[in-house]
Amino acid sequence: MQTQSPAGQLPAGSTERDIMQLGMIGLGRMGANMTTRLIQGGHDLVVFDRSADAVHAAANGGATGADSLLNLVQQLAAPRAVWVMVPSGAPTEDTVKELAGLLSPGDTVIDGGNSNYKDTVRRGRELSAAGLHFVDSGTSGGVWGLKEGYSLMIGGDVDAVEHLRPIFATLAPGAELGWGRVGPTGSGHFTKMIHNGIEYGMMQAFAEGFAILKKKTEFGLDLHQIAEIWQHGSVVRSWLLDLTAEALKEDQDLKDIAPFVSDSGEGRWTVAEAIELDVPAPVITHSLLARLRSRDEVGYADRMLSAMRNQFGGHAIKKS
Amino acid sequence: MQTQSPAGQLPAGSTERDIMQLGMIGLGRMGANMTTRLIQGGHDLVVFDRSADAVHAAANGGATGADSLLNLVQQLAAPRAVWVMVPSGAPTEDTVKELAGLLSPGDTVIDGGNSNYKDTVRRGRELSAAGLHFVDSGTSGGVWGLKEGYSLMIGGDVDAVEHLRPIFATLAPGAELGWGRVGPTGSGHFTKMIHNGIEYGMMQAFAEGFAILKKKTEFGLDLHQIAEIWQHGSVVRSWLLDLTAEALKEDQDLKDIAPFVSDSGEGRWTVAEAIELDVPAPVITHSLLARLRSRDEVGYADRMLSAMRNQFGGHAIKKS
Repeated sequence: MQTQSPAGQLPAGSTERDIMQLGMIGLGRMGANMTTRLIQGGHDLVVFDRSADAVHAAANGGATGADSLLNLVQQLAAPRAVWVMVPSGAPTEDTVKELAGLLSPGDTVIDGGNSNYKDTVRRGRELSAAGLHFVDSGTSGGVWGLKEGYSLMIGGDVDAVEHLRPIFATLAPGAELGWGRVGPTGSGHFTKMIHNGIEYGMMQAFAEGFAILKKKTEFGLDLHQIAEIWQHGSVVRSWLLDLTAEALKEDQDLKDIAPFVSDSGEGRWTVAEAIELDVPAPVITHSLLARLRSRDEVGYADRMLSAMRNQFGGHAIKKS
Repeated sequence: MQTQSPAGQLPAGSTERDIMQLGMIGLGRMGANMTTRLIQGGHDLVVFDRSADAVHAAANGGATGADSLLNLVQQLAAPRAVWVMVPSGAPTEDTVKELAGLLSPGDTVIDGGNSNYKDTVRRGRELSAAGLHFVDSGTSGGVWGLKEGYSLMIGGDVDAVEHLRPIFATLAPGAELGWGRVGPTGSGHFTKMIHNGIEYGMMQAFAEGFAILKKKTEFGLDLHQIAEIWQHGSVVRSWLLDLTAEALKEDQDLKDIAPFVSDSGEGRWTVAEAIELDVPAPVITHSLLARLRSRDEVGYADRMLSAMRNQFGGHAIKKS
């Protein structure tokens, strides 16, 4: 828990080791790992996933399985807390809507996925009208979170967040480290969105730097060695550099990896938000554009540039 | 020392605690701190600076003072090693030239500053013709290097670098951590240049992300709290984030800091190199452009844009 968070004080008589019952919906890579970490922390997990195999695997790990949302809700004692960890967009929308019809006033839904914060603000209003609490947890840490803990940026009413303290304290790297309520419902996903925008920029900066080193063949540089040197004492030392060093250790040419970079939405939302707020964000924007460019297999703009050079200057065209 | 470095083996009979005599020229923030760290490591330092006060201070800290380059050279036993830690450009050029005239074949000059690697390659050729070794050490770590050690990217002949191992092992964060010979003379400064280009991009990504958070007033976000949350378990955790958290702790509005960002050359050299090598580096390039923009007090291009909008569309001009 961070300084200045309203949830900074423990309730009288409780300890950080308080145990809670929590429903978990969605047992993909993130949901399954978080379930494991929560069970290791002593919590009582009731889990559901569309895949019966995933539910079975979690049950083998100590969770209580459910075969439907209704069945999950029935196995939880009120006031219930249900963590939704499914893909953003329609899957989250549908899950939250169905849940809202099954829960009772005073229950809490937590969206731990990568929802657009505007959807979260709207869902918060809708659930609030039904007497339900809606808490958003922007969750960072990826596959390493199981071992190292997740960084959690949390939005929601102060009381609702405080009630969930034992869950956050277990998921985070430390009971008072790496998590905090940052503001009202929606602010957690907003903060996570910006986190991801920064992540895009940092990743692209490293990628460009190593691409220049790679092209400077005259020095015969060992990119893995350089990454390892930078890990200690340099200004660029970071977790992303640690991961880069691991990737370079396996194969400096990265030849089994296609030059095709996906994006899951948060980068483009950050760019749209920056424009909406009149904040110039050239580096975050260009890190998104670099990903779009990596997926442009048609190259129409490049063909057009070549055509124009030929039209006005008679410059040779490279035929496809 | 990193894996795959030719200097990875200790010479027979030596230990990592070997002690050396070293001349240090330039006792600015970096040179003075490095002198202190080397003396703490047991080395014998002979120091010179144009400022007699700086020499006096270093002498009080255990160094042997010199009142000229000649005097410094005379106090060193052959084969000599002299570390040059003065500003890049003319000061380094003049110092290396003068030193070359005073040293004897077999002596070594180390340029630990931020020289352009092309100058370093040329100086290496010139000194080699006089029988001198020239080693470049790209040095990262800033004011924190004294305590935490410096990240050193080293270029030069294998034997010359190996001879200086005790110095590098003491300056670095660990005897075998955070330093390494990356290639021939010039490659150390080249690698440091790229390091700084990456640093520009990472800094700009953080700056843009926090600027968006700052402008999103409706959530009442606490930027210091968010930086602290991200320090644990998040993908963007890094030394630069640690420094950002410190800055935000003091004043989230940063109101005593002018929006004016200097650059010391390595960013623009990185951009020029990227273009020379046909490597697209949009994020590093835009992080440099953002700094240029921060210093554009005249805003001529913006005036021109406003004038054009008025010419073709009759849009109102904001008068200066």
